[in-house]
Amino acid sequence: MPPLDKKQTEQLPQYDVFVIGGGSGGLASARRAGSYGAKVGLVEATYRLGGTCVNVGCVPKKIMWYTADMADNLRKAAAYGFGPEAEALALPKFNWTYLKHKRDAYIKRLNGIYEKNLINDKVDYHEGYASFLSKNEIQIERPDGSKYTVTAKKFIIAVGGRPTIPSDKDIPGASYGINSDGFFDIEDQPKRVAVVGAGYIAVELAGVFHSLGTETHLMIRYDKVLRTFDPMLQDVLGEHMVKTGLKVHQKTHVQKVEKTANGLLVYTDSSEQPVEVDVLLWAVGRHANTEKLGLDKAGVKSNEKNGDVIADEYQNTNVENIYSIGDVSGKVLLTPVAIAAGRRLSNRLFGPPQYKDDKLSYEDIPSVVFSHPTIGSIGMTEPEATEKYGKDNLKIYKTSFRAMSCAMLDEDHKSPTSYKLVCVGKEEKVVGLHLIGDGSDEMLQGFGVAIKMGATKADFDNCVAIHPTSSEELVTLR
Amino acid sequence: MPPLDKKQTEQLPQYDVFVIGGGSGGLASARRAGSYGAKVGLVEATYRLGGTCVNVGCVPKKIMWYTADMADNLRKAAAYGFGPEAEALALPKFNWTYLKHKRDAYIKRLNGIYEKNLINDKVDYHEGYASFLSKNEIQIERPDGSKYTVTAKKFIIAVGGRPTIPSDKDIPGASYGINSDGFFDIEDQPKRVAVVGAGYIAVELAGVFHSLGTETHLMIRYDKVLRTFDPMLQDVLGEHMVKTGLKVHQKTHVQKVEKTANGLLVYTDSSEQPVEVDVLLWAVGRHANTEKLGLDKAGVKSNEKNGDVIADEYQNTNVENIYSIGDVSGKVLLTPVAIAAGRRLSNRLFGPPQYKDDKLSYEDIPSVVFSHPTIGSIGMTEPEATEKYGKDNLKIYKTSFRAMSCAMLDEDHKSPTSYKLVCVGKEEKVVGLHLIGDGSDEMLQGFGVAIKMGATKADFDNCVAIHPTSSEELVTLR
Repeated sequence: MPPLDKKQTEQLPQYDVFVIGGGSGGLASARRAGSYGAKVGLVEATYRLGGTCVNVGCVPKKIMWYTADMADNLRKAAAYGFGPEAEALALPKFNWTYLKHKRDAYIKRLNGIYEKNLINDKVDYHEGYASFLSKNEIQIERPDGSKYTVTAKKFIIAVGGRPTIPSDKDIPGASYGINSDGFFDIEDQPKRVAVVGAGYIAVELAGVFHSLGTETHLMIRYDKVLRTFDPMLQDVLGEHMVKTGLKVHQKTHVQKVEKTANGLLVYTDSSEQPVEVDVLLWAVGRHANTEKLGLDKAGVKSNEKNGDVIADEYQNTNVENIYSIGDVSGKVLLTPVAIAAGRRLSNRLFGPPQYKDDKLSYEDIPSVVFSHPTIGSIGMTEPEATEKYGKDNLKIYKTSFRAMSCAMLDEDHKSPTSYKLVCVGKEEKVVGLHLIGDGSDEMLQGFGVAIKMGATKADFDNCVAIHPTSSEELVTLR
Repeated sequence: MPPLDKKQTEQLPQYDVFVIGGGSGGLASARRAGSYGAKVGLVEATYRLGGTCVNVGCVPKKIMWYTADMADNLRKAAAYGFGPEAEALALPKFNWTYLKHKRDAYIKRLNGIYEKNLINDKVDYHEGYASFLSKNEIQIERPDGSKYTVTAKKFIIAVGGRPTIPSDKDIPGASYGINSDGFFDIEDQPKRVAVVGAGYIAVELAGVFHSLGTETHLMIRYDKVLRTFDPMLQDVLGEHMVKTGLKVHQKTHVQKVEKTANGLLVYTDSSEQPVEVDVLLWAVGRHANTEKLGLDKAGVKSNEKNGDVIADEYQNTNVENIYSIGDVSGKVLLTPVAIAAGRRLSNRLFGPPQYKDDKLSYEDIPSVVFSHPTIGSIGMTEPEATEKYGKDNLKIYKTSFRAMSCAMLDEDHKSPTSYKLVCVGKEEKVVGLHLIGDGSDEMLQGFGVAIKMGATKADFDNCVAIHPTSSEELVTLR
C-alpha cells in the first residue's frame, strides 16, 4: 500500500498523535497507538519504511555478517575432510555484486511488509519531509516540493540519526570517504579499505570486509577497539583481529585524504607513508536528523552538539505532548530499545489504565556485536562495577577456552571464546555478563532474562549444564 | 599418567570411597571427593577414561554434527555469492576416513587430559573389570586376567550403560546391525544406511548420515520421531526431515535382516520389498552395564528389565554406603546430570557442613538434540502440562518463522524455526520451553537459568530484545 496521495493529504483530520519518522521506534509507537483506536499519522522522508535498522543498519549488516561467516566456514571446510584429499580448499570466488542486489531485493520486500503493517493498524502513512510550525502543527514537504499542514494533539519525534563524516575543514579530503550508509551502496568489492573508528559499527564492517578477502585497515584513536565495552572483550577481539591479519592501526588520527588515479591516499599521524585504499569508511559517531525539523518553532530543546532531543524516562521532551523516542532521544541507540520505548509510550498515552505509568527500563539492556567471533554484553563492565561497588565487593568469574567447534581446526582457524561474569556482594548478584565467542549472539538473551530478574551466581549454578555447548561454561564457572 | 601398575595394586589402603566407572559421573564424584582430602580410588574397564560421553557419545557425536553442519553450509554457499557466477557450487568430496581418524586423535587427547585430572586430584586410577565380593569389597580383574581385591568404606556405582541390539531370536539377523558405539568405528562412509529408532540418538545419527550425503532410512515404530518431546518439535523436525529427502519409514518394525554380497536386506512390516543398505544401525534404547557387577553379593537391588541401579534423590541405593549415579541410576541419561549428581554426592559425603544435604534437583533440566536444525527443551511438554494443570490453566505462546539466516537462501535450503512457551496460571509461570531452529543449542542455557528461578511470561518480556537474532522472538511473544 502506498503512502497517502496528494488528494488524500488535502482533507486531513486532527490526529490524536502524529509520528515523525518511520523507523523502528516510529513504526512501533504508531502501530501500538493505532491498535488502541487512536487516530494516528506517520510521516517518513526517505520513501522507504524501516529506518536505519532495516535499510542501512541491523538487517543488511546481519546479511553481510552471514556472508562473511560463510567465507570463514569455507576456509574451515578442508579441516573437516571436504575437498581433494582434505587439502586446503580453494575459496570460491565471491561475487559481491550478486549478493548486494539480492540483499537489496530482500530489504525492499521488508519495506513493503512494513507498509502493509502500518495500514493494517490503520495508521495514515505520509511521505515527505516534516518540520514543526508550532507545537500542534507540522508542515510536510511532498517529494514534488509542494507542501501541506498537519495538526495533531500529540507528536512523537522519531527521526533517528545518521553517521557523521568529518568536515573537509577539519580533515582535508574527508568527504572522499563514505559512511556506513554508503557501505550498503557499494556495488563491487573493494580490494583495499580503511575503516576509521573503534566502535561496534567500525568493528562489524571491518570484520565483513576482512572475512570476504578485502585488505582491511582499521584505524583507531586509542589502543583498543570497543572502548565502552568490558576490557576483556576489547583485548580478545583486538588480538584475534591482529592474529587473522586485519591491519589494526592503533593511536591513529587521519590527517588528510587525497584522491589519485589508483584510489585514496589516507595520511595519518601514526605512519610517514599514507595508506592507499579504494574505499575509506568513517565510523566515528552518529548525530540526530533534527537540523531541519524546526524544533525551535515548537519550543523543543535539543542537544547543541549532536542535535539529540533528550527525553525523560517517560519519553517526554521539555514541551508537553511532544515526545521523543529511538536514536534521536540519544539514549542506547538500539532498535529493540526504540521499539520497546515506542510501544510503552503508546501504552501509556492510549492504552488501558494498567499502563498509565508504563515506561522502558534502560537498565540491563543486552546487546550484541556481530564481530568475528560475536560479542554479547549486558550490565556493567568490570571497571564500571569496580567504581560503583568497590573492588572488594566484587567477585569476577572468568573463563577462556577453545570451543569444540575448533577441535578439528588448525591453529590458524581457531577462534577464541572468553566469558566474564561480574558479581556483587555476599549474595554474588550478577551485575554484568560479557561474552565473546561463536554463538554469543544467540546465547545472551536468556541470560538477560535471568539477570533482569536479579539472578545470583547460585542461580546460574543451579541450572544443569547443557553438554556439549559453549553456554554450559556459564553455569559451571569456578 | 597411566593406571596403577601391578605392584601398586598389591598394597592398597582401605579407600574412603571407591568409584566403579570412569565416565562423566564417576570422574566428577571421584575428583570432588579427592579435593576434600578423602582417599579415593576409581576403576575403569575400557582402558579409556571419559565414558560414553567422551568416547562414544556427546563429544564425537558433536564433532560429526559440526561436520554435517559444514556440509549443509557448503550447500548454501552459492546463495551467498560464492562460486562461479553464484551458480550452485559442487559439494566438495567428503573424506570420512580422514575426519574419523582426526576425531579419534582428538578423543585420545581428551582421554589423556582426564587421566591427568584424576592424578591431580589424587585419585588412584585402577584399570580392570570390577565386581562386588561383598558390600565392602570388590574384585578387580586386570587386563591380563589376574585379579586383586579392593576394600572401601563406600562405593559409588557409576558404570553407565550401552546401546541395546535386539537379539537374533527376536529379530533374525539383528546382529548384522551395529549400535551407536559401532557408529564411531565406521571407517568409510556408507552409501546407504538404515537407522532404527525414533529417539534423539536415532535422529542425530540419521541427520549426520543424511547431511553428509549417505542415503538414509529412518525406521520408526510409530508415526513421529522424538515421542517424549513436545509435539511441536516432533512435527517440525519430522516434516523437515522428509522435506530434505531423508527417508522416514513410519509405523515400521524390522522383522528380519539378511546379509548378501551387496549389503544387508532389511525386511519390515511396512513394505513388501526389503530395504537394501550397507549399514544397519540400532538406536532402540540402552541398558545398564551391571550384568557382571556382582550386585547380588553386595545385596544391591537392580531393575530386572534393564539392569539399572535405582537410587533415591540423594543417590543412595538400597544398601547403606553404596551409591549410584549417572546412566546406571536410570534417571535423565545426560552427562551434566551425572556430573552434577556426582559432585553433589561427594559434597554431601565429604564436603563442609553446609553441603550435608546436598543433592541434585532433577526438575527443569535443559537438554539439546543435535538434529538439523537443533532442538532445545526444558520443563514440561504441552501435553504433560495439560495433564498436570488442566487446559484452562495453561497459556501457550507459539511462534514459527524463517530465521534471517534463511533470507538469502532458496526455499530448498531454508530450515524452520519454531518456539513454544508453556505457561501456567494467572501469573503465567513458565513451566516449559521448546525450541527448534538454528542456534537453539546455545540459546537454551540462559533461559534455563531464568526458568529454574521461576520466571514468568512477564519476566521474559521485561528483558529488551537483542536484534537481529532468533532468540529475541522469545521475549516478544504475543
